[in-house]
Amino acid sequence: MRTAINPSISVDIVVFGFDGTRLKVLLVERQKLNSSATKEYKLPGSMIAENEDLDTSAHHTLQNLTGLNNIYLEQLHVFSDPNRISNEDDKKWIEFTYGITATRIVTVSYFSLVKINLSVLKATMQGKASWCDVQELKHVSFDHKEIILKGLDRLKSRMQSTPIAFELLPKKFTIKQLQNLYEAILGVDIDNRNFRKKILKYPFLIQLDEKEAKVNHKPALLYQFDAHSYRQEQKKLKKLKIF
Amino acid sequence: MRTAINPSISVDIVVFGFDGTRLKVLLVERQKLNSSATKEYKLPGSMIAENEDLDTSAHHTLQNLTGLNNIYLEQLHVFSDPNRISNEDDKKWIEFTYGITATRIVTVSYFSLVKINLSVLKATMQGKASWCDVQELKHVSFDHKEIILKGLDRLKSRMQSTPIAFELLPKKFTIKQLQNLYEAILGVDIDNRNFRKKILKYPFLIQLDEKEAKVNHKPALLYQFDAHSYRQEQKKLKKLKIF
Repeated sequence: MRTAINPSISVDIVVFGFDGTRLKVLLVERQKLNSSATKEYKLPGSMIAENEDLDTSAHHTLQNLTGLNNIYLEQLHVFSDPNRISNEDDKKWIEFTYGITATRIVTVSYFSLVKINLSVLKATMQGKASWCDVQELKHVSFDHKEIILKGLDRLKSRMQSTPIAFELLPKKFTIKQLQNLYEAILGVDIDNRNFRKKILKYPFLIQLDEKEAKVNHKPALLYQFDAHSYRQEQKKLKKLKIF
Repeated sequence: MRTAINPSISVDIVVFGFDGTRLKVLLVERQKLNSSATKEYKLPGSMIAENEDLDTSAHHTLQNLTGLNNIYLEQLHVFSDPNRISNEDDKKWIEFTYGITATRIVTVSYFSLVKINLSVLKATMQGKASWCDVQELKHVSFDHKEIILKGLDRLKSRMQSTPIAFELLPKKFTIKQLQNLYEAILGVDIDNRNFRKKILKYPFLIQLDEKEAKVNHKPALLYQFDAHSYRQEQKKLKKLKIF
C-alpha cells in the first residue's frame, strides 16, 4: 500500500562526488511521458510521506532512487517560488508520477558529499543514477539546476573554512589529486609549487610510506587526512581567537 | 479579503537582540482561548500565503506581528516532526486562528539579529511583541523553544567565525559591552584583561575620540566596528590559506 503523501512538500537531494578531475552531481533520469521527448535528468527527490520527518524522507528517497544509503545529509535550502512548477511538462510528469495535480510544491533541498569508490559506483549503477558533470548540466528538469548551484555555493564556502574536501577524496590521495579537487570546485588554476608548500605545512596531513600504484607516470607519494589532529589544532586556535 | 493559505507550511522567525547584559528573543503573546488559561508566548509566525514565497511570508509575518520591517532574515532550519502539532491546546488554537484542522504543519524557521534601539523598541511595543530573556524561557508554545535553541546554536557558531556580534551592539560601544555580549551568548566568563588584549589587536576595531555619556562610573572609551577594513583583512587571509 502506498503511504499517503503530502502534496505541498518535497525533498530533493544534491549529492556531490569527485572522479579525480571533475566535480560530479548524482542525477536520475526523469521518466519520459512520450517516446519522442528529450531525455531529461532531475535530482533524486520525491513528495514527502505524511508519517515521516523530512530527514527520513530524504534518506528513503535517496536509497530508493539511487541505491545509496547511510549517507550524511544536511538541509541545504528551501525553494518556495509559488510558480516553480508552472511548466506544462513538469505538471504532467507530477500528475503521472504522484497522481496529484500540482498547484504549488515547496521543496526542501539536502546536501551531501560522497567518495566515488567501487561500492558507491556499484550502488548507483544498480540504482540507475548517473554521475553528471557539474560544469556541463543540460536537460535538467524543474529548477534543479538552481538547487545544484546553491549546493555548489555551500561546497565552495565550506571548503574554504573546513576540511570538507577530504570527504570527496579517496582515503589515501596525492597532493596533485587534492589540488585538482580545489581547482575543479573553485574553478581556478592554482600554482603547483605554492599549493604544495602551503598544504604540506598543515600538521593534519600525514605523509604515508606508500606511493600511487598502476600509474603511467612517476608514482607520487600518498597522504592521509588526520581528523583527530585537525580537531586538536582547532581547539587550540579557538582558545586564541574571538572570531 | 483573506489570502488563501497553505495548511501544511508555516514560517517562524527567531529575532535575537541584546539589552546590554542579556540576550533576548522577540516573542508574541498567544491569544488565550479561555480566560483561565496560562499566558503563553510564541515566535512570530504564521501559515504561508499561497501566492508568496517563504522569504516574503516571513517578512510580512514579522511586520504584521511585531512591527519590525526591513530586517535581514535568513533561513535557519525546517522543523518537520509529523507529531509536532499533537497537543490539544495547540490544535484548538490553530483551528481558531486559521480556520483549519491541523494534521501536520512543517515550519521553516528564520534567523535574525537586531540592535535594540529606540526605533526598534517603539516598533515592537506598538506591535505588542515582547523581548524575552533567552535564559528564562517559560510558557513557550509548540516546539518554539527548540527552534529558539537552534537559532542560539547558529548564533554561537557564527559569532566564533564572523563579526556577527556587532549586529547586536549599538554603533558605538565599549569593550566591556562587547565582552558582556560574548559572555551572555556563549554562556562563559571571560577574563577582562585577556579579552581587552585580544580584541584591541583587531585592526577593524576603531577607537573613537569619544566616551560613554550619562554613566555613574568612570566613562569608558567608545569603539566602532569597521566593516570595510574587516573585509580587506579577510581578503588577505583568504589568499594565504586553503582552509
